[in-house]
Amino acid sequence: MGNSCEGFFGPQKNTNVRVSLPAVCFVWQIAMIILFGVFIRYDEESDAHWAEHKKSHNISSDIENDFYFRYPSFQDVHVMIFVGFGFLMTFLKRYSFGGVGFNFLIASFGLQWALLMQGWFHSLDPVTGKIYIGVENIINADFCCAGCLIAYGALLGKVSPVQLMVVTLFGITLFAVEENIILYLLHCRDSGGSMVIHAFGGYYGLAISWVLYRPNLHLSKRLSGSVYHSDVFAMIGTLFLWMFWPSFNSAISDHGDGQHRAAINTYLALAASVLTTVALSSMSQKRGKLDMVHIQNATLAGGVAMGTAAEFMITPYGSLIVGFCCGIISTFGYLFITPFLENSLKLQDTCGIHNLHAMPGMLGGFVGAIVAAAATESVYSKEGLINTFDFEGKFAGRSVGTQGGYQAAGTCVAIAFGLVGGAIVGFILKFPIWGDPSDDNCYDDEAYWEVPEDEETIPPVLEYNNHMIHKHQDIAESNFSVEQS
Amino acid sequence: MGNSCEGFFGPQKNTNVRVSLPAVCFVWQIAMIILFGVFIRYDEESDAHWAEHKKSHNISSDIENDFYFRYPSFQDVHVMIFVGFGFLMTFLKRYSFGGVGFNFLIASFGLQWALLMQGWFHSLDPVTGKIYIGVENIINADFCCAGCLIAYGALLGKVSPVQLMVVTLFGITLFAVEENIILYLLHCRDSGGSMVIHAFGGYYGLAISWVLYRPNLHLSKRLSGSVYHSDVFAMIGTLFLWMFWPSFNSAISDHGDGQHRAAINTYLALAASVLTTVALSSMSQKRGKLDMVHIQNATLAGGVAMGTAAEFMITPYGSLIVGFCCGIISTFGYLFITPFLENSLKLQDTCGIHNLHAMPGMLGGFVGAIVAAAATESVYSKEGLINTFDFEGKFAGRSVGTQGGYQAAGTCVAIAFGLVGGAIVGFILKFPIWGDPSDDNCYDDEAYWEVPEDEETIPPVLEYNNHMIHKHQDIAESNFSVEQS
Amino acid sequence: MGNSCEGFFGPQKNTNVRVSLPAVCFVWQIAMIILFGVFIRYDEESDAHWAEHKKSHNISSDIENDFYFRYPSFQDVHVMIFVGFGFLMTFLKRYSFGGVGFNFLIASFGLQWALLMQGWFHSLDPVTGKIYIGVENIINADFCCAGCLIAYGALLGKVSPVQLMVVTLFGITLFAVEENIILYLLHCRDSGGSMVIHAFGGYYGLAISWVLYRPNLHLSKRLSGSVYHSDVFAMIGTLFLWMFWPSFNSAISDHGDGQHRAAINTYLALAASVLTTVALSSMSQKRGKLDMVHIQNATLAGGVAMGTAAEFMITPYGSLIVGFCCGIISTFGYLFITPFLENSLKLQDTCGIHNLHAMPGMLGGFVGAIVAAAATESVYSKEGLINTFDFEGKFAGRSVGTQGGYQAAGTCVAIAFGLVGGAIVGFILKFPIWGDPSDDNCYDDEAYWEVPEDEETIPPVLEYNNHMIHKHQDIAESNFSVEQS
Repeated sequence: MGNSCEGFFGPQKNTNVRVSLPAVCFVWQIAMIILFGVFIRYDEESDAHWAEHKKSHNISSDIENDFYFRYPSFQDVHVMIFVGFGFLMTFLKRYSFGGVGFNFLIASFGLQWALLMQGWFHSLDPVTGKIYIGVENIINADFCCAGCLIAYGALLGKVSPVQLMVVTLFGITLFAVEENIILYLLHCRDSGGSMVIHAFGGYYGLAISWVLYRPNLHLSKRLSGSVYHSDVFAMIGTLFLWMFWPSFNSAISDHGDGQHRAAINTYLALAASVLTTVALSSMSQKRGKLDMVHIQNATLAGGVAMGTAAEFMITPYGSLIVGFCCGIISTFGYLFITPFLENSLKLQDTCGIHNLHAMPGMLGGFVGAIVAAAATESVYSKEGLINTFDFEGKFAGRSVGTQGGYQAAGTCVAIAFGLVGGAIVGFILKFPIWGDPSDDNCYDDEAYWEVPEDEETIPPVLEYNNHMIHKHQDIAESNFSVEQS
Repeated sequence: MGNSCEGFFGPQKNTNVRVSLPAVCFVWQIAMIILFGVFIRYDEESDAHWAEHKKSHNISSDIENDFYFRYPSFQDVHVMIFVGFGFLMTFLKRYSFGGVGFNFLIASFGLQWALLMQGWFHSLDPVTGKIYIGVENIINADFCCAGCLIAYGALLGKVSPVQLMVVTLFGITLFAVEENIILYLLHCRDSGGSMVIHAFGGYYGLAISWVLYRPNLHLSKRLSGSVYHSDVFAMIGTLFLWMFWPSFNSAISDHGDGQHRAAINTYLALAASVLTTVALSSMSQKRGKLDMVHIQNATLAGGVAMGTAAEFMITPYGSLIVGFCCGIISTFGYLFITPFLENSLKLQDTCGIHNLHAMPGMLGGFVGAIVAAAATESVYSKEGLINTFDFEGKFAGRSVGTQGGYQAAGTCVAIAFGLVGGAIVGFILKFPIWGDPSDDNCYDDEAYWEVPEDEETIPPVLEYNNHMIHKHQDIAESNFSVEQS
Repeated sequence: MGNSCEGFFGPQKNTNVRVSLPAVCFVWQIAMIILFGVFIRYDEESDAHWAEHKKSHNISSDIENDFYFRYPSFQDVHVMIFVGFGFLMTFLKRYSFGGVGFNFLIASFGLQWALLMQGWFHSLDPVTGKIYIGVENIINADFCCAGCLIAYGALLGKVSPVQLMVVTLFGITLFAVEENIILYLLHCRDSGGSMVIHAFGGYYGLAISWVLYRPNLHLSKRLSGSVYHSDVFAMIGTLFLWMFWPSFNSAISDHGDGQHRAAINTYLALAASVLTTVALSSMSQKRGKLDMVHIQNATLAGGVAMGTAAEFMITPYGSLIVGFCCGIISTFGYLFITPFLENSLKLQDTCGIHNLHAMPGMLGGFVGAIVAAAATESVYSKEGLINTFDFEGKFAGRSVGTQGGYQAAGTCVAIAFGLVGGAIVGFILKFPIWGDPSDDNCYDDEAYWEVPEDEETIPPVLEYNNHMIHKHQDIAESNFSVEQS
């Protein structure tokens, strides 16, 4: 269907990306190689000089290498990025290839660009002019991709892979800048990225989608829903995101109690989100039936909202309260806000990232601000307070109240970067050169994928039908001829 | 279909849970928040006071935090609970949403309630009245959920989500009590839970299912099987359970050799189970064809049966023998015992948990007893024996023979708790207030889920058929009218 | 269909394995138990004597147990073997059970046999005559299975499970011999197994497939493709392989910087492969559409090719270059070499393992040789060079140039073992006793599995059709009778 150049409603757009997609992939990948050659080197823990480093720093055992503190969490984060986000986006009946496949493509590009961008901003050695990378950097690169994958959720089915590469290029760049402002200039804490990942990524995607509004998207309505098995595939994504979110929020927290506490808090918040999502989903439907869209998405809101506060002493019941509220808010969003955005604000948000990332991320930023402002030495211990908020160097002596204020300011910075950056990127994507699909050709893998014919799904009874039809045809025709004669 | 209030066989039961399900979720979640507020705090390894604790306990490095010993295993267990159990239950053709979705719901509630129940029984600080939690507690909470998810396997497709919440509430409670008796009063070792998880959970579910016997369940026979792709989905569950079972059995074993040995033993037992399952499955079918039910389930029996003995010096070939026998016994159960239970004992066991959990769990308990009784100082070393069986405090000096006896007794306690507790819970679930489906409406997601219409699976040939039918209709009608005239 | 003894093209082969499959499974599993009883014991880190060992070796903490260095990587490798390879082979429309199920069977047998074979060759204690196993051994056993699973990729759908067991028995044996020659006699480094796993496994499978050439395989053409959802299932396999490949290549590297560097290098090479695969796939198709076969396979080539060099100081941009080239070469292989092999060399390679494993593995071996030969003390440090290449004992003082030469020689040994061993095994498999399918019965789960009937996939409209057909039948028949009367 996507092959024919004429749709029902006039000529279809040309979705041919045979020149642009290979060109972008090749040129950008070659650029990555050159830039990596100039800038990127192993850090002292992944370099063969580690044996010397160990001696000179009096490190007694290889197990003290940061690899063993963070690599298991890295792998969990990696699964979230590729299987979690990827399969969550397979829910559409005929866009599973695009959901999981383009997610794969843009994350693979994004992580390379992120290593460079984050390196230039945070870890460029002023003497050697090199960026030294280790396991924490590759976790951060994955995090950086997450922002762009969230934005993809709003655009799912409506853009070409070339457009997605552009979204990723600018998204990673904007991410590195806002992250630098929030984490280094404002000295916010945001180990799980409520602000820098979710609020930014959410509003970035929403702004792009708002600019790319398609008034006739209803022409693709036939493909905008799920089928039974695509919903089960999407649950793979949901569950791997849900299960590994404790690793996401704790992956780059402080060694020891920081990582430990971040994992426990996230674990609890997510559990509470599931119960309130189920409750609200059931209340909203006839006969109390659950809606898969809510279960696939809103159950994750607790993890998003704990991104900032997970490493703080929010207390276990505080985590439950955050999860409780966010499950409700997110489900409420799917029920009422998404339709409102689409109808009133002309904002089409395929996966509902407003409800899962933008809103809970923003809330998570403010929760973090409040919890930071409420910190006391008796709860954290003197040393614990300094460690947790990193009140060292030029930030030694900052009060927790001030910290809370900066945390709130950081949230606003993330949102502003998302909205403004997304609007600009959206306008760039409006140029008619990107091979995006026409309004009646969205949500369809046919446009960018060789799709196998599903002839084998014809059940035996059909063959029988065919047989019977031909038989009737014979009978009917014989009747017809008899009568004619 | 589930919407209509009249079935083929009289009025259908009302499966409306629009009031009860939200009420249960909201009220119980609020109760959790309050109880967590009163009781649950971070333990010394997840608290911000860790820096002080480290100094006062002369701990040299953050890597000594229990988080780094156990968190990778925790994540594996977490995957087993949500993806493993969840996807294993997607095998039914039209109950995949319920399989993976209700599993998600009840495990999310269960883990919160488990933290409280297990805390009250084992780790309530008598001075402060608080429960202090760390990574080991959240592993134990996941373990506790496993018992209820096993029980769900017997009930799959026949109960409402509200009933499942009740099953979980009581299941976790009973679990905490029997676990306390077995592990603390009898001082049994059961690191992978053959007794406390599998034997208990299995008999708990079977007893409930026996009380809830449905004489007319054959009316739902059309939905009681699998389809091709639902069997592939279920293999996702099987494989994640199978692969991560070494982590399950080693997650809370002793640091060092205990965890190491438990993982190796489980790895070997599971491998042997696969071969004997395939052998027996092939023998049992015409032309040696394999049955997916066996491959999906009986291959896991070796892991269940190693739950107690995995941390003992059972030897690698001992592990293989256990796996060898359990693969046979479990497949035999699917072939002969499940039909017998259904026909003679009126016990309907959807997933065959008798064969996968109840029987192998019981066997695992007795294997553990024998291996414990056969322990010697030459095999374990003096210190190793004390460490492995925790012969310290008031249990210092207990003989291995006595330990073996207590292990066997523990198995019986687990079974008794399961059977009696399950029978009582079964009777509670018979009240006509829970919104369970009628006999001709089981195994059907329509009852509790908004199910998408699968119109897109119509292959092109069908449209042709439709076209031809209308054509014939025209011909036939024209014939008809001609003749009438 | 597979049940009937007559096909369209003469009598079908007998695929009855009801005697042979159970016999092989039972007898070999019993042999494993006996051999494990004679040879296999726990090593000092998984034995209960660990407490004593720790004291005598002055080890300060349980965290120094090798379990904590390697177990997270082991679990990732384990997932790759069972879910990665298994689901990658579910892409065929009607061979998903066989893809994931036989993979499960042969890996479960293979890992046991590998522990024995690798033990006899590398770690048999000459004094006690025992093999002592720990976590590194079970990783190596999984690696060893990988070689056979790669070979299975070439044979997918064309052989019986009994044949696969034979392929595995000999494959593991050959693997242990060539690995011993390459790693111990030639003293090559190959932590991720470009040579010993991928080049060997690839050519082993190709040689078998070449001997088993089926001139009339086109008779099974109807089943040789994918359907929409089977392609999505295969992406589960692809992604778990892709995500966990950094763990695969670093699992048995040196503690500390070795594991750290291997993970980072693999991470980067894989990312680059994705971009060049997408580029070439898009270039090759009409309108720039992507082909799922390329995305599912060629994206992994970077991981294969980094198997040897990952632990070396190949530099981050060096890794990107390797991934860049291998993505292109592998996709090129799927486009041109696989058809050429089939048409000109009479070599049928179901999964295209030539493009994914054989070629990139061989390249990886040579890349390793070059990087080794280019090593310098300034890059590695004196101690780092000795650690990385293990220039100790009788290999102290070997030059890096010599090492490079041996690495290249090792690659040739692996290929030679694969080709010769595979040819011999292929001839063994030609005996007409193994129950393999006939040419018109390949790629069909019906031959070896009880396959559920998919009657429920009939969409509602079909029932309407049926209804209409019967109605027409009545009309047509009444017409007919009217006219007759």
